[in-house]
Amino acid sequence: MRITHLAAAAALALGAGLAALPAAGAQDMIVEKKTFELPSFTTVSGRTVKGVKVGWEAYGKLNEAKDNVVLITHFFSGTSHAAGKYTPGDKAPGYWDAIIGPGKAIDTNKYYVVASDTLANLSPKDPTVVTTGPASINPDTGKPYGLDFPLVTIKDFVNVQKALLESLGITRLKAVVGASMGALQAYEWAASYPDMVERIIPVIGAPTADAYLIGWLSLWAQPILDDPNWNKGDYYGKEPPVAGLKTALKLVTLHANAAEWADRTFGRALADEAKNPFVAVENKFKIETALDQAATARANVADANHFLYLVKASQSAAVDPAKITVPTMLLYSPTDQVFLADSVRAQFALIKNARLKVSKTIAGPYGHLNGVLEIRRVASDITQFLDHDMTKPWVIR
Amino acid sequence: MRITHLAAAAALALGAGLAALPAAGAQDMIVEKKTFELPSFTTVSGRTVKGVKVGWEAYGKLNEAKDNVVLITHFFSGTSHAAGKYTPGDKAPGYWDAIIGPGKAIDTNKYYVVASDTLANLSPKDPTVVTTGPASINPDTGKPYGLDFPLVTIKDFVNVQKALLESLGITRLKAVVGASMGALQAYEWAASYPDMVERIIPVIGAPTADAYLIGWLSLWAQPILDDPNWNKGDYYGKEPPVAGLKTALKLVTLHANAAEWADRTFGRALADEAKNPFVAVENKFKIETALDQAATARANVADANHFLYLVKASQSAAVDPAKITVPTMLLYSPTDQVFLADSVRAQFALIKNARLKVSKTIAGPYGHLNGVLEIRRVASDITQFLDHDMTKPWVIR
Repeated sequence: MRITHLAAAAALALGAGLAALPAAGAQDMIVEKKTFELPSFTTVSGRTVKGVKVGWEAYGKLNEAKDNVVLITHFFSGTSHAAGKYTPGDKAPGYWDAIIGPGKAIDTNKYYVVASDTLANLSPKDPTVVTTGPASINPDTGKPYGLDFPLVTIKDFVNVQKALLESLGITRLKAVVGASMGALQAYEWAASYPDMVERIIPVIGAPTADAYLIGWLSLWAQPILDDPNWNKGDYYGKEPPVAGLKTALKLVTLHANAAEWADRTFGRALADEAKNPFVAVENKFKIETALDQAATARANVADANHFLYLVKASQSAAVDPAKITVPTMLLYSPTDQVFLADSVRAQFALIKNARLKVSKTIAGPYGHLNGVLEIRRVASDITQFLDHDMTKPWVIR
Repeated sequence: MRITHLAAAAALALGAGLAALPAAGAQDMIVEKKTFELPSFTTVSGRTVKGVKVGWEAYGKLNEAKDNVVLITHFFSGTSHAAGKYTPGDKAPGYWDAIIGPGKAIDTNKYYVVASDTLANLSPKDPTVVTTGPASINPDTGKPYGLDFPLVTIKDFVNVQKALLESLGITRLKAVVGASMGALQAYEWAASYPDMVERIIPVIGAPTADAYLIGWLSLWAQPILDDPNWNKGDYYGKEPPVAGLKTALKLVTLHANAAEWADRTFGRALADEAKNPFVAVENKFKIETALDQAATARANVADANHFLYLVKASQSAAVDPAKITVPTMLLYSPTDQVFLADSVRAQFALIKNARLKVSKTIAGPYGHLNGVLEIRRVASDITQFLDHDMTKPWVIR
């Protein structure tokens, strides 16, 4: 899940007492968005899309053997902007800047780190995102696809990433590392292309979307389907389903966070002390208006059909943990409400054929979002796992 | 939360291997719905409603001293039908029939058990429910109140119950026992009328709605507010906001349940094996259509404004645990997604002035709903607590 303005503000507000963030400023890594284009892409379901474009970023240097590559796969509302800044004046760096950069856990002095936007990225109106999905122009009609765009799956995301890497001459990955929907992609990489991947680090995610997650994803999407402006996906050039999209985004935001964050940030404070929530339906608590504001900001760059497509893609995750052979380090949050710890642990326990498997918890007040906002807490675990010689046994340091 | 058709079916499906249910049939308790009417009721916020009616049921016999009364307070989508059957042919008894009846945990050979419908009960179209709320006719206008009905709080529910009990000559309660929103009422009883209540048994609930719960309740309600048919609550005699109400009910149903139930009942099964969910937006998983069917059934008897009013009432819960002096037995579910175990435990820890406090967990696959569907697992704890002489120390048996 993306760091929302809300969550980012909360992160700052809650910063005291937590481990210090790396100092920003002079050492900011400046990064550039690039575009990868595939003249034609065929989905796993057998449908072909012309002129598929996705944005990507890279940090560090590709070595001559082209064998120092770490792929970062993004979460539901994330983008390829995993680290660094586009200009020194950017307010915030990429979402995992705490662990990606020179001398950091995923050390760009050592690794060539690649991150790409998925197909149907949630935020096609974000100027830093390049994606192809229902909001894109269908070259055959000159109009947006809408629901004519084929549904896509986690494996389709992986296949686009594979094509991007192959275009760079890369045939082997040191690691695939991703949070949430990015973890689904990491597991899919391990399952589909085990000979290309040396290790995976799924963060706050599981190999398979279980029934409860399928149900929740469906309910995230439902407000969009209920919005009359959605109009079966045909709203481009018309009034878009903003109300439905906003409610969907609110659900994601709250679900991805946790009670400790809510309590410490809002408690039972009112949005307006003069407006008692128990005398009028429209009078709200502070957490209610904060969720509303965060959703409004996100809805400005998001697309409702893309949201639906990402729900379908996330539901498609169905990797059999018993078939994972690639060394795996699972990082999860015990207070995660989206990928519940019990389910994540149960699925991880079924990984019996990996050459190595390790799991660690990520503490913090943000539930699911600990995997993004508190990732620095597991920085040394990530470094150890990346550096580990997989022919040797694992020693816990 | 009410036992939905869905949950009830699941409970049966999952019955194997669990403790045996008490045999039904000959010993079914036959109960009768009665109506309590208050010519005038003034809310805590100072607004007066004429001709307030609520339904109630009683099980057992009121003794001469009128001091053998146990009050049952109902959950968000519940009713006063806590036990027994209206006719021997009823498909299912009241929701807590497993613990209320002759010889059961709350033994009706000993106690006079009273259960009443709240104001603004979720299901005013259920013929067994009697309630007063936004869907009721305003005697001053001859039309439904809509949002002209005053918002109500947990304390208002308690005050109506108090008036009902006083009309029966009852001035002292052996115990108040309630699940979820019923637990909020039990805590409110202890805080507001400590001299009337000997002990409380809050089940799957906490004294105060914390920020995360306030946020979730708000999101449950949002689909109703988003539905154009809601029309600021003015939809009586017009097209009601069924789509929004259904989505709201789906959210409650899934939230109140848990991953184990979802996995065991549905897994990744498709609604229709011939319709792959990854080739068309409208193709669904079984859990998605099951949630839809359950919500459709519930929406038939529910009212959207009543849903909003119950959200507000639940958000109003703000009992300071430090002020609880009444002996308290907390029964909670470790896998509860609505009243998260961490929050329930943390609030319980702040109860320092109660003459006695005890907590027990309720196991089961249903998360929050363990407090309803699996209540028999804590039957002996309930009996011990009800029978305990509060002048003596607690001995764990």
